[in-house]
Amino acid sequence: MGRQYDTVSFLSDFGHQDEFVGVVKSVIRGVAPHALVIDLTHEIPAHDTRAGSLSLARAVPYVASGVVLAIVDPGVGTDRRAVAVEVAGGEGVFVGPDNGLMAAAVALTGGAERCVALTNTAFHLESMGGTFAGRDIFGSVAAHLCTGVDIEELGARIDAVSLLPGLLPISREEDGALVAEVLWVDKYGNIQLNVDAEELEQYGDPVQLAFQDKTRVVRRAAAYASVTPGQVGIVIDAYGLVSLAADRASAAESLLLRPGDSVIIRHVD
Amino acid sequence: MGRQYDTVSFLSDFGHQDEFVGVVKSVIRGVAPHALVIDLTHEIPAHDTRAGSLSLARAVPYVASGVVLAIVDPGVGTDRRAVAVEVAGGEGVFVGPDNGLMAAAVALTGGAERCVALTNTAFHLESMGGTFAGRDIFGSVAAHLCTGVDIEELGARIDAVSLLPGLLPISREEDGALVAEVLWVDKYGNIQLNVDAEELEQYGDPVQLAFQDKTRVVRRAAAYASVTPGQVGIVIDAYGLVSLAADRASAAESLLLRPGDSVIIRHVD
Amino acid sequence: MGRQYDTVSFLSDFGHQDEFVGVVKSVIRGVAPHALVIDLTHEIPAHDTRAGSLSLARAVPYVASGVVLAIVDPGVGTDRRAVAVEVAGGEGVFVGPDNGLMAAAVALTGGAERCVALTNTAFHLESMGGTFAGRDIFGSVAAHLCTGVDIEELGARIDAVSLLPGLLPISREEDGALVAEVLWVDKYGNIQLNVDAEELEQYGDPVQLAFQDKTRVVRRAAAYASVTPGQVGIVIDAYGLVSLAADRASAAESLLLRPGDSVIIRHVD
Repeated sequence: MGRQYDTVSFLSDFGHQDEFVGVVKSVIRGVAPHALVIDLTHEIPAHDTRAGSLSLARAVPYVASGVVLAIVDPGVGTDRRAVAVEVAGGEGVFVGPDNGLMAAAVALTGGAERCVALTNTAFHLESMGGTFAGRDIFGSVAAHLCTGVDIEELGARIDAVSLLPGLLPISREEDGALVAEVLWVDKYGNIQLNVDAEELEQYGDPVQLAFQDKTRVVRRAAAYASVTPGQVGIVIDAYGLVSLAADRASAAESLLLRPGDSVIIRHVD
Repeated sequence: MGRQYDTVSFLSDFGHQDEFVGVVKSVIRGVAPHALVIDLTHEIPAHDTRAGSLSLARAVPYVASGVVLAIVDPGVGTDRRAVAVEVAGGEGVFVGPDNGLMAAAVALTGGAERCVALTNTAFHLESMGGTFAGRDIFGSVAAHLCTGVDIEELGARIDAVSLLPGLLPISREEDGALVAEVLWVDKYGNIQLNVDAEELEQYGDPVQLAFQDKTRVVRRAAAYASVTPGQVGIVIDAYGLVSLAADRASAAESLLLRPGDSVIIRHVD
Repeated sequence: MGRQYDTVSFLSDFGHQDEFVGVVKSVIRGVAPHALVIDLTHEIPAHDTRAGSLSLARAVPYVASGVVLAIVDPGVGTDRRAVAVEVAGGEGVFVGPDNGLMAAAVALTGGAERCVALTNTAFHLESMGGTFAGRDIFGSVAAHLCTGVDIEELGARIDAVSLLPGLLPISREEDGALVAEVLWVDKYGNIQLNVDAEELEQYGDPVQLAFQDKTRVVRRAAAYASVTPGQVGIVIDAYGLVSLAADRASAAESLLLRPGDSVIIRHVD
């Protein structure tokens, strides 16, 4: 027997309009009634493994020890692997598709230790079709892990280096400017860049932003509510990253920026 | 005393924008603190008992034993009955309005056994108005069932045959073609038809679809990601039913099909 | 040691598209694994403390004893206070920003008793930035309260009269008419006014409504489904308040009314 877990932290792109999330939780309840499922989010845009990967990475420093169930899986039913990845000496086990979704979060916990492909169908549900692996494979396996099934019972060991890596965009200096990328636009319209507070320092305050065919001069503020009304400012967010923000308004609507867009940061002349 | 339950599986059209779901769960927490509520979905379109009935039927093979609380209730406050329906020798009790919403799910569990109308107000909350039966009647009753109140204490016995039946659309053959109906469009835009894999066989592969004033020839695929990019294909879904699907795209947006629409399946000439 | 709590009732404007709610729950799970979080709603419109305050007030008569975590916090990171407010002899503790959000709910539970500003950082998480107090302050404090930390350990005592009051709109009589305001438009499009059943009596049935530049004559109905099809009627809702409603349709879409709008109620001549 392996270690028992009592928390499943669950992220997906299932949304709430259908009963997908509820059914996965029902499967877990049936197998591991002692386990509590904590929903991280289920509103990752459909099939968007990049957005899911970033959301999971933001959350993972805070998740309770236990199973992390992560499902954004456009390749469901194909030969992409279903995997379980143990981290931190067994403090946690990630369960999901091997498509890069979990890579950044796994790295943040210290990297993959024992890994298996979920080939042992004894821990799956029988299915009438292969399109709902969240229910029939991942959810079922997550629950069995909670009951103390050891990861190695779930299938064939695989090499951690064979796991698909994630692609985290890195900012770069170019001609004295910082070429950054929008990582995330949150519900409030705050725009997170792949730039940390320290990298920003050398460009002064205010800085010039260039994106699409526009430029803007923006000033640092200590809090969202300290940004000049009607303006966009820079706030260091709760992850230590540079965020373009407005006071009670959406910076993303104002600047028309979306995840993946480029933003160039320069000194103001 | 009846059997105690520790899970309430909860489906409604309450949505998440208001506190309706939270208040029902608060009521349950107050009466039956040991019970865990599992949200199946609360995003059934407002008043759409057909969509709610289908969602509940898809979920019910997976729900934990216990109480199933199902509320899509356009007739709240009128003389439509509020009922509890025991199934499977007491493995489960459905609680909700008697408006057909629970009929298909009850049938899938083997059919109604003991049934009562929820006429005993001792198990209801006092209310200032009759518009929130989810809080004042159904939620309260579900919680009392969890604590071991026997179904027959909840009100007058009624005959199972008096319950309003559900209306599940059946596909039919007509002039060598199969006249089907869209049951469900999921979050991803997959279109589930009321046709199972076996019924489809005789029409070959590919098949011709006719709907509205259009025809399309579609081919079987083993997984969503195996559908030809930019095309719509047929995938047998996780319920064993024929689903029109696209790879990382919405078949429903492509074909402009919605629940209730007719689709005719024919041999390709 | 203070009293232990096992329920956190959680309301916010965090939405579901990001992992904010899940991260706060993860923090609580880590500190107080025995506590169950009940989501009241997280879809309060961004920064809308008035809507949050009304939602919390509607829910609070039903919440389980324990911690009430309420976060709609446009002033996060500024000098607005973070507070905990004990009510009902310790039956409950409200945790959130001191911006009026909790005022009406606190009043409904009998008023504030011991109050503290959350100045003791020993019960906060260390943060890389000050923009996510829900995670780093409020969620962490709520969890510590569940484990039995006394409210006075959380920071400096403050006077209950120093808490920012809420602004609940009161209807008024003017020239024989009742000048009311829309408090809430729910998911179904029902329009709740700040008028109770008794106040309405003197205007007869039907009554005339005047709003924007329109007038409408509306009739009382006992239930939503008893409103004449295609018409808007008046239904006394589950809070004892006057609600403008339609049968299986949105009164708000029909009348184009939104929260905060004025509605004047008169006798029909």
